[in-house]
Amino acid sequence: MNKKRGKQTIVFAAPPVAISTANIVGPMEGEGLLGKFYDRILEDNLHNQSSWEKCESYMLEWAIKSAIAKKQLTPEDIDIILAGDLLNQLMSTHFAVRSLQRPFLGLYGACSTLAESMLLGAALIDGGFADNVAIGVSSHHDTAERQYRFPTEMGVQRPPLSQWTVTGAGGVVLSVAGQGPKVTAATIGKIIDMGIQDPNAMGPAMAPAAADTLWQHLQDTGRQPAYYDMIFTGDLGVFGKALVIELLKEKGLDITNNYEDCGCMIYKESQDPHAGASGCASSAVVFTGYIYQMLLAKNLKKILFIATGSLHSPTSYQQKESIPCIAHAVAIEMD
Amino acid sequence: MNKKRGKQTIVFAAPPVAISTANIVGPMEGEGLLGKFYDRILEDNLHNQSSWEKCESYMLEWAIKSAIAKKQLTPEDIDIILAGDLLNQLMSTHFAVRSLQRPFLGLYGACSTLAESMLLGAALIDGGFADNVAIGVSSHHDTAERQYRFPTEMGVQRPPLSQWTVTGAGGVVLSVAGQGPKVTAATIGKIIDMGIQDPNAMGPAMAPAAADTLWQHLQDTGRQPAYYDMIFTGDLGVFGKALVIELLKEKGLDITNNYEDCGCMIYKESQDPHAGASGCASSAVVFTGYIYQMLLAKNLKKILFIATGSLHSPTSYQQKESIPCIAHAVAIEMD
Repeated sequence: MNKKRGKQTIVFAAPPVAISTANIVGPMEGEGLLGKFYDRILEDNLHNQSSWEKCESYMLEWAIKSAIAKKQLTPEDIDIILAGDLLNQLMSTHFAVRSLQRPFLGLYGACSTLAESMLLGAALIDGGFADNVAIGVSSHHDTAERQYRFPTEMGVQRPPLSQWTVTGAGGVVLSVAGQGPKVTAATIGKIIDMGIQDPNAMGPAMAPAAADTLWQHLQDTGRQPAYYDMIFTGDLGVFGKALVIELLKEKGLDITNNYEDCGCMIYKESQDPHAGASGCASSAVVFTGYIYQMLLAKNLKKILFIATGSLHSPTSYQQKESIPCIAHAVAIEMD
Repeated sequence: MNKKRGKQTIVFAAPPVAISTANIVGPMEGEGLLGKFYDRILEDNLHNQSSWEKCESYMLEWAIKSAIAKKQLTPEDIDIILAGDLLNQLMSTHFAVRSLQRPFLGLYGACSTLAESMLLGAALIDGGFADNVAIGVSSHHDTAERQYRFPTEMGVQRPPLSQWTVTGAGGVVLSVAGQGPKVTAATIGKIIDMGIQDPNAMGPAMAPAAADTLWQHLQDTGRQPAYYDMIFTGDLGVFGKALVIELLKEKGLDITNNYEDCGCMIYKESQDPHAGASGCASSAVVFTGYIYQMLLAKNLKKILFIATGSLHSPTSYQQKESIPCIAHAVAIEMD
């Protein structure tokens, strides 16, 4: 059966079910706007680990194991784990997944990794290759800061365009059957690079990729934006969000009534996150918490979840390259 | 249709066909044992690019585009690109894929990435989500050396256990139909960590993962090693290869007659690679060249290709962590 639709979209014949999610965040996220939607809030960003990286890995392991345990499943019930994070060589992921001892495939999509994992997981289930797929992604403010920017001890002043990397992790279990919202379709993004070179301007850099994937999803499916109760992007922040709205307006589409960016939903203004939240965990902690709860309660019945990734590296920036970006969209619907 | 077999193996109902491959290597690889099986040999490791990273990216782009062009296809015929490399944030991959403008999913499996890409590509085709998937992986001696070990300018003496990272890239096109060897089954590895901490001993660190995946593949399929004309591992080198043979012998299996490691096939002893070759490109340039040609000529009819990955990072090593390893196996057969 051909499940291709249009140029970049795939549909699932028997849509896999997101039967469970779990999340864990740092204290700043816990004090933010969505505090009550998190399963667990750490008391500090280290949690008695010997490094921030090990704390991130701990969070990711906890999120995946908790998503599995919530449905009285054990790791042995999981056929495949798909996971990723922002760190070099997926450091958080590999040490998080090690103790689970399940077949594992590592993904790198920067902050688009949750959508990448969900579309691949859904394809593996709908294709007959797995009954249960566990998914996990993480980011951590302090590990990202020192890897991508400056030693944290320097206390470098952040420019106004910059976003605050979310400390947190999200886990999802997709299953061939069960109760919960279903993954019905996905649009796989292509790399969009508008020539932006400032790694502090990731939101505006990623916005054209988000707009491109959303536009292509609508073309491929013949849908209007109003088909969805809400369209969520991953971590564009206030400037990136405004740019997506503008780019779609140029194409004649108005998404102002049913569009929000996860990066604008996490922190209070009083927490001074500058342009908003970012990181793999930005979309992950919002999806696995607030969005998932809204779907279960049928306050939202059809959503399009577009996680966005900035695919640059510190080395590519030093070598004067621009920022290649990507966005993957996953359509999720309650019966 | 359930395509799960045993604990970690999947089978393809309509096995996707590897209709095309292409590869490109550096001069040292070109002068090695398999020189005549490469499509293109660069005159030096920089190829007039402004950095080694950009040269690696050039090679990867060339390999993917060449694999597509060999069958008179264009990028527009490719539904999905799956690719990865060893560099932080997949730097080579993202700049290589940017110009292709096709739906793209980034993978990180370190040196196991070719097998990871092939099994996911085959699943996406067999599941009905794509007709043609393009795959590419790369590594580069000089980019890997300065990222994982020491500034290349230092000329640090290499320990005897160390392997030489292959400068090269391989591209594969998998298709729903066509002529060529077919991907019939795959076994997805789990993370195996035996506590080895020396990042110069990657072959011995990865050997237990290769042995585990091979053993599980045989259990899941009910096959004996002799089912395959040849079993190839990715980049274990001489010490890792000997360890795999020993580990299987302890389980009562003799693979000495039909087993070879790609890392032992690339360089001449006179080139002094120490323990052999490594890198994503180790298995990739051997598979896309020698092995693929042997399959097309039916000198080999059934092979098991086990690419092995060492999933540590320089940061995890500095934080005194051991080396988590993985191996994924892909069964490839000619009718």
